[in-house]
Amino acid sequence: MLSVTILGNNSAVPAYNRHPTSQVVSHDGTSYLVDCGEGTQIQMIRYKIRRSKISQIFISHLHGDHYFGLAGLLNSFNLLSHTSELHVFGPSPLQQIIELQFAAAHTHMCYPLHFHTLTQNEVLVDNDKIKISCFRTDHRIECYGFVFEEKMSKRKLLLDRVRQLRIPVTFYSSLQNGLDYITSRGERIKNDTVTAAPERGKIYAFCADTRYDESIIPHISGADMIYHEATYHDNMRDKAYERFHSTTKQAAVLAKKAGVRKLLIGHFSSKYNSLDTFLKEAKDVFPNTDLALEGLTYEVH
Amino acid sequence: MLSVTILGNNSAVPAYNRHPTSQVVSHDGTSYLVDCGEGTQIQMIRYKIRRSKISQIFISHLHGDHYFGLAGLLNSFNLLSHTSELHVFGPSPLQQIIELQFAAAHTHMCYPLHFHTLTQNEVLVDNDKIKISCFRTDHRIECYGFVFEEKMSKRKLLLDRVRQLRIPVTFYSSLQNGLDYITSRGERIKNDTVTAAPERGKIYAFCADTRYDESIIPHISGADMIYHEATYHDNMRDKAYERFHSTTKQAAVLAKKAGVRKLLIGHFSSKYNSLDTFLKEAKDVFPNTDLALEGLTYEVH
Repeated sequence: MLSVTILGNNSAVPAYNRHPTSQVVSHDGTSYLVDCGEGTQIQMIRYKIRRSKISQIFISHLHGDHYFGLAGLLNSFNLLSHTSELHVFGPSPLQQIIELQFAAAHTHMCYPLHFHTLTQNEVLVDNDKIKISCFRTDHRIECYGFVFEEKMSKRKLLLDRVRQLRIPVTFYSSLQNGLDYITSRGERIKNDTVTAAPERGKIYAFCADTRYDESIIPHISGADMIYHEATYHDNMRDKAYERFHSTTKQAAVLAKKAGVRKLLIGHFSSKYNSLDTFLKEAKDVFPNTDLALEGLTYEVH
Repeated sequence: MLSVTILGNNSAVPAYNRHPTSQVVSHDGTSYLVDCGEGTQIQMIRYKIRRSKISQIFISHLHGDHYFGLAGLLNSFNLLSHTSELHVFGPSPLQQIIELQFAAAHTHMCYPLHFHTLTQNEVLVDNDKIKISCFRTDHRIECYGFVFEEKMSKRKLLLDRVRQLRIPVTFYSSLQNGLDYITSRGERIKNDTVTAAPERGKIYAFCADTRYDESIIPHISGADMIYHEATYHDNMRDKAYERFHSTTKQAAVLAKKAGVRKLLIGHFSSKYNSLDTFLKEAKDVFPNTDLALEGLTYEVH
């Protein structure tokens, strides 16, 4: 199962008990942290996110509301005697900022901490469970969105055929892994006659902070769920453009044009107390929209 | 009135809804922020501390739990179009850390922000209302405590004498400011015959993170209230020493030896859920002790 838990859904200045951007993408027992605004580690405690399950952290850009909680979180990992590897992906000079802070504190990391500097659209993680890649967005400073693509490595059993050929149940797992079956009489049953290709895995895309920008569509096209910022109501398009942000309807139009199944909106401006209008405006254009609400987990269907 | 409001009372890792160190010292309409752990700006909203009243920020040392909220707070001042001067006092390389973060965000401050690097025991602020000075403590890295000394600039009226001499009420304020009174017959009434010297102002000392260290006594001696860290119960003296921290009883012994009137203890380790034992152990040695509890304001009497 691929899902995302929202830890912060507000834009720059915290307000109305909304926190700056942070999300946890969970898949198959592993958690991936996406952005880490101030207070993220406190939100993780509040919403019972197990820090020990995080092995990769992705920082979209270096505006404070997307990473000012990172140094504190990395420091807590240290104090809690974390031992396994941690990988941090983000634009330059993230590594320099964090290392300067640790040097000032005379802190030596007790776990292997690896920084990976984002510089272009590329694949960041690719294993048998998941592929994670980044893409540039149109923001005031260098900024990246992230695509999480679940891999379904196991082939699908054609149960009728398998049973008809009396292949033993103990061999089903080998069939799913693509092996042929040899009968007791030495006859080879080709794998592709008893299994079908794996189903496509689920795709979640986090579109970070961005102006309305159709050039990101190829990266998120056909995703099962995307998160797209909607900092302002739609009557603030000029301000959104000027500040390199998007409005409700712009997020919804992009979701529609990209042919995604579901849209989450967030990064709400502190000027708005109620979120009702955000949802209504986006749904007018793209009905399958949800507000990204703190503490809630959205499963990618 | 001199008072202190606690925004965070926990040591390094947030736990049990306790936050890292931050306090607001208030005096005569001005607020002074002492330390600024992660989430301080959120705590300020929670406890209705008006950010606009803060013109000076004091950072004791560069362990993250004492300043990781500073960049976010300074950034919010910017986004909220703060215009008046802000002064930040802290050890090196605080300025470099903050400026590197703002440069990475392409953020230009819209208000005058001045950094003052702490390097020795000295007077930091000295005006007609307050004197603020810093002193070194014994911690793993360069660390400073701060003393807030209220100034009582106005002389005390000797009301019997003033009335007897029929000095008009409208001149009382001038008398409090030290002026002589000239009667309608040209006779001079010397100020010191109708007023007494100003009363001593209140003194609050924040002793930061420190091992038990009697060398700080001259700086806090006779204070009306001090805050002294008590990271551990007293059975953890060895650990406290090793980690450059203090225990409950060490804080209390220091308060007693310094002849202060009241002791606040804080910086509680995340290993302890309940704070009862902290209070009991300190009170055994120094009865006028209080726990520094988040959201509470302690008036300096």
